Amino acid sequence: MARQVRLTDYPDGQPARSFWAFSNDDLPPLGDNEIKLRIDWVSVDPGMSGWITNKPSYMPPVKLGAVMRAFGVGEVVESRSERFQLGDWVTGFLGLQTEAVVSHKAVRKIDTTSKPPQLFLSGLGMTGYTAYFGMMDIGCPQENDTVVVSAASGAVGGIAAQLAKQAGARVIGIAGGPVKCAYLTDELGLDAAIDYKAGNVGEALNAAAPSGIDLYFDNVGGEILDAVLDRMNYRGRIVVCGSISQYADFSAARGPANYMRVVTHSLKMQGFTMRNYMHRVPEALEVLAKGYADGSLKFREHILEGLETFPDAYEMLFDGRNHGKLLMDLRGDH
Amino acid sequence: MARQVRLTDYPDGQPARSFWAFSNDDLPPLGDNEIKLRIDWVSVDPGMSGWITNKPSYMPPVKLGAVMRAFGVGEVVESRSERFQLGDWVTGFLGLQTEAVVSHKAVRKIDTTSKPPQLFLSGLGMTGYTAYFGMMDIGCPQENDTVVVSAASGAVGGIAAQLAKQAGARVIGIAGGPVKCAYLTDELGLDAAIDYKAGNVGEALNAAAPSGIDLYFDNVGGEILDAVLDRMNYRGRIVVCGSISQYADFSAARGPANYMRVVTHSLKMQGFTMRNYMHRVPEALEVLAKGYADGSLKFREHILEGLETFPDAYEMLFDGRNHGKLLMDLRGDH
Repeated sequence: MARQVRLTDYPDGQPARSFWAFSNDDLPPLGDNEIKLRIDWVSVDPGMSGWITNKPSYMPPVKLGAVMRAFGVGEVVESRSERFQLGDWVTGFLGLQTEAVVSHKAVRKIDTTSKPPQLFLSGLGMTGYTAYFGMMDIGCPQENDTVVVSAASGAVGGIAAQLAKQAGARVIGIAGGPVKCAYLTDELGLDAAIDYKAGNVGEALNAAAPSGIDLYFDNVGGEILDAVLDRMNYRGRIVVCGSISQYADFSAARGPANYMRVVTHSLKMQGFTMRNYMHRVPEALEVLAKGYADGSLKFREHILEGLETFPDAYEMLFDGRNHGKLLMDLRGDH
Repeated sequence: MARQVRLTDYPDGQPARSFWAFSNDDLPPLGDNEIKLRIDWVSVDPGMSGWITNKPSYMPPVKLGAVMRAFGVGEVVESRSERFQLGDWVTGFLGLQTEAVVSHKAVRKIDTTSKPPQLFLSGLGMTGYTAYFGMMDIGCPQENDTVVVSAASGAVGGIAAQLAKQAGARVIGIAGGPVKCAYLTDELGLDAAIDYKAGNVGEALNAAAPSGIDLYFDNVGGEILDAVLDRMNYRGRIVVCGSISQYADFSAARGPANYMRVVTHSLKMQGFTMRNYMHRVPEALEVLAKGYADGSLKFREHILEGLETFPDAYEMLFDGRNHGKLLMDLRGDH
């Protein structure tokens, strides 16, 4: 029997666990051009916080009582569409559930012959695309630029930092705690890592970036933004990444206190979400798939098993317990 | 005898009048490639606040005891340069003084045959250039865009607003008080004016810009920035103008509280100063001179007479008493 996670109310801030309800509802019979999926992997994303906020945004909020919105990958187990056959793998907004019936328009086929399917929810999915377009299309790192990435051991930040490194930049990652910082230098090969929990970020930046900062990939806003901003070079660029919303305390994700620096140093700050770039996904996919295939890009995943883990998984996004792209493995739920 | 205004100390915040000292010092004899000028007009500029702050910026601070830095226009009254003859008019950093001896490299000749010389300190000077490049090169107003300009009756804002109007945009100006607001609609022909002293700016923007805002030319930061930001349309642009420094309370010129909007609406915020654009001054001058000649651009000036008025003039920049480009007429001082 299919199992679902449903939203019962719009939380005011971070949701208590009571906002999530589990159900075991049968799926409707297939209509024309619909397919039935067995969902093996679900993505737990920062953007979810926006989807459960009851105000207009780039996407309508999830309806109360409805299955929670989520990206997933699954296999076609029944089809009334000419586009899909049994055994095809697809990705899209499949919802937080073990099975789904969806329109064939709502999903995209993925090629899992040489890649594990969950990769299309991490490095070869929205996470990877976000890192790619934010860093390469907006940030445009140049050789010998000094680039700083906050939340650099996170899903998006980790890929963005590696892409800047491949472009020939000197890359400094900011993360919380010695384990994540060691990962940045030892595994991802960044030039320096700053543990924002260990001391003054400004002083650490002075040491790691003595010639100032040319490009900042901002995943956090707030105090770290201020510390970086005060060290930005003339005509520096700040990419304000959509994943900034992964922080529970939105008020901490305020803009820069030192707004004057934007003027005196002719800085450019640009926000973006993947909405701007959906038409260019193939370009990102090509670069990311190549990096995965030749081992030059590492996509770290943090996997939790079973649909029941969702309330805990969601909280992890905000307290920093996860390390890498947060995914739920539903293969044991079938 | 020449008369000067000198800086005696670096103020901490807005300078008290005691920081300015007047002197009557003879000028040095001319060296090779130097010229002597009779200074008729001096510009009182927001940027001065940065020049009397003792920290590195895009320009070194004025040295203690030195003549205060200022743009001026003057006539050549003595020349040991092949570039300049008696009777030539020039502009440049001539200093807050009635006469000056400067290198011929420090000034630029201006054509005053059909234009009053002080115009090269307002609409045909840095003020006009700043408005031109900020609005036309960074902001790029499109036909039917809704454009908001803060400090719109100010020196830069007034010209920026008119340029947006000429580009076919719907332009809303924000200013303080009914006189300045009437000037915006009645004299400059803007589509709407909002008196920020008269009520809630957000509600006034809802009424004046019911379809949201595409482009914001920000001269003030702070609360007005927040009110505008919350109403910016998808892919909106915010031009952060160098003249933002005209506000005494720099802490009020903070960045946006609602930084998330930069992400969710894919906004671009870009700061600039004329430093980026000095090589393109002729382009601006051509457009601005044409607008002045055919009457389509109005350059409002606020004129004070005599060097002694400087301490008061400087304070005006910060309390909003001036209305238009603040200039000092030194013709009575000779």
